Amino acid sequence: MSEFALIAAIRRVLTQPTSDVVVGIGDDAAVLRAGDGALVWTIDAQVEGVHFRRDWLSWADVGYRSMMAAASDLAAMGAKPVGALAALTVSRGFCEAMLVELAGGQREAGELLGCPVIGGNISSGDTFSVTTTVLGRAEKPLLRSGARPGNLVQVAGRLGDAALGLRHLLAAHNGGAGVVAWRRPLAQIDAGLRARARATSAIDVSDGLGQDVEHLARASGVRVLLHEAQLLLCAPALPERDALALALGGGEDYALVVTSDERVEGFEPIGVVTEGEGVFVKCLDGREMPQAALASGYVHSV
Amino acid sequence: MSEFALIAAIRRVLTQPTSDVVVGIGDDAAVLRAGDGALVWTIDAQVEGVHFRRDWLSWADVGYRSMMAAASDLAAMGAKPVGALAALTVSRGFCEAMLVELAGGQREAGELLGCPVIGGNISSGDTFSVTTTVLGRAEKPLLRSGARPGNLVQVAGRLGDAALGLRHLLAAHNGGAGVVAWRRPLAQIDAGLRARARATSAIDVSDGLGQDVEHLARASGVRVLLHEAQLLLCAPALPERDALALALGGGEDYALVVTSDERVEGFEPIGVVTEGEGVFVKCLDGREMPQAALASGYVHSV
Repeated sequence: MSEFALIAAIRRVLTQPTSDVVVGIGDDAAVLRAGDGALVWTIDAQVEGVHFRRDWLSWADVGYRSMMAAASDLAAMGAKPVGALAALTVSRGFCEAMLVELAGGQREAGELLGCPVIGGNISSGDTFSVTTTVLGRAEKPLLRSGARPGNLVQVAGRLGDAALGLRHLLAAHNGGAGVVAWRRPLAQIDAGLRARARATSAIDVSDGLGQDVEHLARASGVRVLLHEAQLLLCAPALPERDALALALGGGEDYALVVTSDERVEGFEPIGVVTEGEGVFVKCLDGREMPQAALASGYVHSV
Repeated sequence: MSEFALIAAIRRVLTQPTSDVVVGIGDDAAVLRAGDGALVWTIDAQVEGVHFRRDWLSWADVGYRSMMAAASDLAAMGAKPVGALAALTVSRGFCEAMLVELAGGQREAGELLGCPVIGGNISSGDTFSVTTTVLGRAEKPLLRSGARPGNLVQVAGRLGDAALGLRHLLAAHNGGAGVVAWRRPLAQIDAGLRARARATSAIDVSDGLGQDVEHLARASGVRVLLHEAQLLLCAPALPERDALALALGGGEDYALVVTSDERVEGFEPIGVVTEGEGVFVKCLDGREMPQAALASGYVHSV
């Protein structure tokens, strides 16, 4: 059963109208009314053996990365983080020194994000995991659903560097290109804040550009045409076909995609919004191909 | 390494002053400034094999119980919940029918609490867990630290019923007294809201009355003297010694303890606050005993 089917099933059962909820299940984060603005709220889990392997990350990296992965959803809403809570599940061998190192990584990320960890929970369990919830504020949160034909599709951050790093880690090549990008991503909070006045829609790239832009296109009821030539400028320096597969399939750079009438400072153009549906790539040879056909070279799982 | 040592270590690393944070790591929930009032925010994990066994609970029970366990921290702050996010870790066998049942239990609890689940996250993993974060509002949140000598110690909810139920479940006696209390606790949100104008301090009973009141006494810099005769009125109908051990050691009823000058409606008196430190029980025979010596008959873990 896919994550999307699960989420659709959950939404059917759980959706109940309340006066406080502006956006419920289905966008990058939930939105609650709060005075003049809104609270934007998300949760993300990093599970050992699923999202990372312990020999790939120091405990500080685990803490740092868990904060960035969670905060990235707030970047996608154009929100400014205010604080985080973290729930740890730790097994018997976990000691105070490891915890202090992990918390040090959370703090490093928290300082970059302007978002301290202000509480949490510790449970025992067989598998290590850290689940982080981040709360932020936005006057008018960006959604996935506002893209309009004629908009430029733009990205802040690299595409595929972290995926290349993961490929090296899977091959036990810890010093390879992209490994630092995979270990130490940066949530595009500042880019989201810069974009929020102009952007018509936004999504962060956590599962892979192709897949994530599919969500945006579906939510907005539009077609997106990405340009290979532009994508390659944001992708690792590899042979074209491989670089494109990484740029479309690799998500853990936590890049930020927005659509808007004009170019936003600090974003690179990667395509255009048109009438229709689906996400396609205009290749260097002029052909238009469905993104999924080109991203397929990339394997996501640990 | 104890949970308390871990939390102290985390706090040393993570505490950083920011203008939005009123209460950070160490109380029942974190508190953020929000207009005239405050946001109260907590996270709680329920891990299979640690907090429950699958043969003890339906999926609906798992969902219901996870919401109540998390919301109980908000009751302890005198806060009104506004919404929840849930992060699930599910293993391969988990199917849509199970998810719908689990979400149904979350919804049931959410309706009782006035707190819908408005978002979340699903990961794969070897061990099932559900981690719930709940956000609420309070004008002036109750803390653990305000108890004063002369205050009455009072409780809303039962003490030890759920622990008795757990004892039956551990003995494979699924129909025993207290099993429903263990499966379907009620977070004392309404009691917390009633208490907030008068209470000087509050804590919810998640680890056991004795231990949790120790936290409150330490945070407030006071001694608490509980009365066995009063505790037994809130405890299971068992021989005195056993009933007292369950009342002091059993936490998963999610009862709410407050201190205040006068009795609060819907709360039962169980003791008094005095000068000094520690938590003691005035026994039926007139002796005063440290609570830990009397709670020791109770075993907490699954």
